[in-house]
Amino acid sequence: MIIVLKPGASKEDVDRLLERIHGLGYRTHLSRGEQRTIVGIIGDEDKARSEPFEAFPGVERVLPILTPYKLASREAHAGDTVVVAGPARFGGGEVSIIGGPCAVEGREMLFRIAGPVKEAGAVVLRGGAFKPRTSPYTFQGLGEEGLRYLRECGDALGLPVVTEVMDTRQVGLVERYADLLQIGARNMQNFPLLSEVGESRKPVILKRGLSATVKEFLQSAEYILARGNPNVILCERGVRSFEDSVRNLFDVSAIPNLKKASHLPVIADPSHATGRADLVVPVARAAIAAGADGLLVDVHDDPAKALVDGPQALLPAAFAALCEDARRIAEVLGRTVVGPVGSVGPVGARV
Amino acid sequence: MIIVLKPGASKEDVDRLLERIHGLGYRTHLSRGEQRTIVGIIGDEDKARSEPFEAFPGVERVLPILTPYKLASREAHAGDTVVVAGPARFGGGEVSIIGGPCAVEGREMLFRIAGPVKEAGAVVLRGGAFKPRTSPYTFQGLGEEGLRYLRECGDALGLPVVTEVMDTRQVGLVERYADLLQIGARNMQNFPLLSEVGESRKPVILKRGLSATVKEFLQSAEYILARGNPNVILCERGVRSFEDSVRNLFDVSAIPNLKKASHLPVIADPSHATGRADLVVPVARAAIAAGADGLLVDVHDDPAKALVDGPQALLPAAFAALCEDARRIAEVLGRTVVGPVGSVGPVGARV
Amino acid sequence: MIIVLKPGASKEDVDRLLERIHGLGYRTHLSRGEQRTIVGIIGDEDKARSEPFEAFPGVERVLPILTPYKLASREAHAGDTVVVAGPARFGGGEVSIIGGPCAVEGREMLFRIAGPVKEAGAVVLRGGAFKPRTSPYTFQGLGEEGLRYLRECGDALGLPVVTEVMDTRQVGLVERYADLLQIGARNMQNFPLLSEVGESRKPVILKRGLSATVKEFLQSAEYILARGNPNVILCERGVRSFEDSVRNLFDVSAIPNLKKASHLPVIADPSHATGRADLVVPVARAAIAAGADGLLVDVHDDPAKALVDGPQALLPAAFAALCEDARRIAEVLGRTVVGPVGSVGPVGARV
Amino acid sequence: MIIVLKPGASKEDVDRLLERIHGLGYRTHLSRGEQRTIVGIIGDEDKARSEPFEAFPGVERVLPILTPYKLASREAHAGDTVVVAGPARFGGGEVSIIGGPCAVEGREMLFRIAGPVKEAGAVVLRGGAFKPRTSPYTFQGLGEEGLRYLRECGDALGLPVVTEVMDTRQVGLVERYADLLQIGARNMQNFPLLSEVGESRKPVILKRGLSATVKEFLQSAEYILARGNPNVILCERGVRSFEDSVRNLFDVSAIPNLKKASHLPVIADPSHATGRADLVVPVARAAIAAGADGLLVDVHDDPAKALVDGPQALLPAAFAALCEDARRIAEVLGRTVVGPVGSVGPVGARV
Repeated sequence: MIIVLKPGASKEDVDRLLERIHGLGYRTHLSRGEQRTIVGIIGDEDKARSEPFEAFPGVERVLPILTPYKLASREAHAGDTVVVAGPARFGGGEVSIIGGPCAVEGREMLFRIAGPVKEAGAVVLRGGAFKPRTSPYTFQGLGEEGLRYLRECGDALGLPVVTEVMDTRQVGLVERYADLLQIGARNMQNFPLLSEVGESRKPVILKRGLSATVKEFLQSAEYILARGNPNVILCERGVRSFEDSVRNLFDVSAIPNLKKASHLPVIADPSHATGRADLVVPVARAAIAAGADGLLVDVHDDPAKALVDGPQALLPAAFAALCEDARRIAEVLGRTVVGPVGSVGPVGARV
Repeated sequence: MIIVLKPGASKEDVDRLLERIHGLGYRTHLSRGEQRTIVGIIGDEDKARSEPFEAFPGVERVLPILTPYKLASREAHAGDTVVVAGPARFGGGEVSIIGGPCAVEGREMLFRIAGPVKEAGAVVLRGGAFKPRTSPYTFQGLGEEGLRYLRECGDALGLPVVTEVMDTRQVGLVERYADLLQIGARNMQNFPLLSEVGESRKPVILKRGLSATVKEFLQSAEYILARGNPNVILCERGVRSFEDSVRNLFDVSAIPNLKKASHLPVIADPSHATGRADLVVPVARAAIAAGADGLLVDVHDDPAKALVDGPQALLPAAFAALCEDARRIAEVLGRTVVGPVGSVGPVGARV
Repeated sequence: MIIVLKPGASKEDVDRLLERIHGLGYRTHLSRGEQRTIVGIIGDEDKARSEPFEAFPGVERVLPILTPYKLASREAHAGDTVVVAGPARFGGGEVSIIGGPCAVEGREMLFRIAGPVKEAGAVVLRGGAFKPRTSPYTFQGLGEEGLRYLRECGDALGLPVVTEVMDTRQVGLVERYADLLQIGARNMQNFPLLSEVGESRKPVILKRGLSATVKEFLQSAEYILARGNPNVILCERGVRSFEDSVRNLFDVSAIPNLKKASHLPVIADPSHATGRADLVVPVARAAIAAGADGLLVDVHDDPAKALVDGPQALLPAAFAALCEDARRIAEVLGRTVVGPVGSVGPVGARV
Repeated sequence: MIIVLKPGASKEDVDRLLERIHGLGYRTHLSRGEQRTIVGIIGDEDKARSEPFEAFPGVERVLPILTPYKLASREAHAGDTVVVAGPARFGGGEVSIIGGPCAVEGREMLFRIAGPVKEAGAVVLRGGAFKPRTSPYTFQGLGEEGLRYLRECGDALGLPVVTEVMDTRQVGLVERYADLLQIGARNMQNFPLLSEVGESRKPVILKRGLSATVKEFLQSAEYILARGNPNVILCERGVRSFEDSVRNLFDVSAIPNLKKASHLPVIADPSHATGRADLVVPVARAAIAAGADGLLVDVHDDPAKALVDGPQALLPAAFAALCEDARRIAEVLGRTVVGPVGSVGPVGARV
């Protein structure tokens, strides 16, 4: 950590600051330039980061040098983490596709959609039972009933299932039904919820917050890792911007950016990113070309009747074509899209 | 609600769409322009809003006409809601100031700061016991111990106290100690938490999310109101932007904008908005000049030793001067800053 | 255009509004719903758009229905425009790659870099002679001397050349040397400059402004088209955001979004988008996968000595590998990257 | 400037970097921490800033320490610059109000509005003759005819006049008619135009760009100052954001933020910031409370007939009330709103 002093910082200011830093057990390195004096703090930056050095008299700016996350960083873990869930493998050159309806609207509807989703190439089935909705007056999901249908459908098809958990009180319940837990964008900084899923050992798909930086995203992953759950999958799903013709602005550069900074797998949700079915396919292709370890795609066989997010759902045929595109683009990059009859292993094992 | 059809929409597309709309019990109004056909839907827009009309073949765009919140709107409630907590009154031309440390760091520290905060003019005492922190490795608050100190200090000084609640499981606990509940910016769309504090009848200070629109902010308030808690205070605390010299961009126009759309009181948190003590005072003055019904200000007597957010805390003397400025600016606008010996009434009563 | 009236709009308000609309020669369509009255304006929306209907008493909101650009729209021109410059062809399933140094730093340097750039697969040579720099104290480009080197180098290699024009007074000069004109992001809404290059018939690469919406981007293209120059190439180069680990946030969805709304070709500049050489390749691949009609890439053989934007430049070998990736990804989508010995045609012809 | 090296930087990397830095004439300061080696560069940072150190092998990050502007900084000029134009004085505790129509629509209209504007308290008359319009199909201003009316009207009333200049070729013309020149938000980084008005000695109102940081804003002011024109007035007018209920997000904290970093006066344009007449007054009051040195307000006597930006114009009576509010709020802060019969001095003189 580097502390830049104001031009007019007095000797007393400097002494008081150094005394505090030394009192915390750090060594310092003082550099007097022509226009500014700079103090380098040598030692564990995490502890130093909690100190309000900016509030000291004479201090102009505090510049952290190290990343504020550890377990999530490449420095801690150079190789790729591969998160496994049944046939699905995310990371380490393997790409897995997750598909299904945004919300479980009923048993029959789920089975009707899930079959073609599996045939198209999905190796994980998605479906929301608890839905975070901006308005209190819209459909909020079927709750436990939805979880039961999802489990039943996953079992029937031999697919692991993923669903969102929104409340610390629901984690136990959702864990009983689902193979992977999803944390939605609006909960990326719901720290009690992160800690709670950190106590689980099931893989967690953590969605990027609407206006979260890459650094904050990795700090949220750190909350989960710090509780002992190593199976975190990061999901880029677009960030908020001024652009009003798409729901969110899909940050394709976040994929290689995250993978450079972290060993965790990174997948993309082109459906919630764009909110427009006509843009889902090109954005999904782009994600794969940028190195994504997976896709999470809304599929519905009658989008005009969907209870949630119909305008962004792909028809099963379009989803199948997308899976094929993904396979071919991944090949160009020397990567492999995991097929539906891929190597089946225990859920959540880590390579 | 208005539905704009694509130039090439077929007769079948239009018929299918109208059939669905009529099937939902709405009347329609068809207008064929030179370049577009437009369908007006007549009837309750809330229900129509849940329908995925954008996913219908032939539909170009769906334009809602009404606001997606009701109880929070001026149309539902033309006069100002005044939220009362002990001496504090927010709304209806009365302005109340909340002050105190960002986090309760200990009993002695809280009492030491709270006295001058009250003398300066604050009518509510703030202090965090559960702190949402970006990193899992920083101070997370004293928890229930902090709540006890806060209650004790509020009782000693005759001030109502406000503190943040972060988890649905904590609401009961926090409610036992605090007079007002605070929902932090990162939880503005934590819908289970909103519903939970909606079951309380204590006033709730709801902070605007980091990238929430005014409309979404009011929809989150609607979650609380819809559960029967009418005592919602909206708090503008800055939104995320590209500007890197301040922590957040304080949206001063949101104050009159919210007050025009809603009857709920609106307060401002200049401390978290800017993250810089040197900007807190001018931004707080601006908030009052823009019509804010209150301020929420971090105060610390030794910011260089604060465990949380020291760089943004005001010293008690600066806080006292700010309270005086606020009083005089409010006067210019014909409004009144509630004094420490104001009219004392029951907490949470609604005018 | 649709005008939504306030709930309390009086009969006089409505009459005054209708009188004005009819006075402008429009027909109207009145729809009285349960909660709002709505006026549909039938006729040319462009003229209506200039009217300040929102300032009329009783008006709540004005909703335009049509796009505010015409010549740039797919409705005006259903097929793809193909912009041709020597061997390069942008649009209609053909993809062309532009490479070269960010700035022309000298004659020898340009020739040294341009050879490998051509060999790698570039069909247009880029190089800045007039550089827009945030600070007045940094290198501003070689000016006309740079233009001469660029022309000379393009002639020697048989490559068309593109360079930026920043000032209306420079257009004539730059046109004498360059085959394509580039308008930088900071000038996307420099309307006199847009009009001036609209008087040229040379292809114009128009970069998206730092915070321009897709709609505004197309309106700026409209300025050029409206002056009679049909050869506009849109260039996505990232937009400003809160994310601080990349220079700009590359909006990959803008590529299919623009191509759906407009017939104009769309290329991508991954170098200025990210500002980081390590992200240029994955972002460039993503752009091609999303359907870009070309790439504009900074190449330098010694980035550590570059006078401008060294940190984002690719080495020639990395650029060659990227060209090969682009070729293979384009193939997956049934598109073709134009080779250096492609079909040579007149510059700027339009298919 | 500080350079942070990668954990794995080799001795060769460090030596090569140091050699280059020393070759440029700088001294260095090397600090080897536990996890990173850091190089401090001692000497003129402006020159170092142009070097692409981030492109050197082994370099992780480059951290500038000093501001990238000089003449605009408080370090260069500790006292407030006061810009004078006739009776108007901006800065040093004096506040001046500019009013008038967004566009000069005709001679009669301008005279009709300007009288009440002066009476209300404006000491400068505004009116656009060249209008930057997003669409090429809307009213672009009366050009020189508008300038003539503006001059004539200013002379008749004894008010200095300000108008926008959009093109380097127009500067001479506009300078002949106007007392102050305005650079619009879309031209904040039109560097040739900044240089051109820098050659003038007339006061320049420089509007903040739609997505410009405070630092970039001051760098653009630096372009003007560096050419010898010291009379720069900064104008905050809102920045682009995700919020869709206002045109721009007015950054009230930028006012004290700019004034802390720079000696230049800062004014506010609440009209273009919000785009909504109902928000102009509270935002303008907030700007004064935050320390603004002036206001720039759209006034029209029949907003429903305005050719440009009618929905944001104040009626003369509302403008007069606002001027009175501004006077009283300024008084609270110990500042003075310059009256119409203020101390008249030469235009552009600098205190």
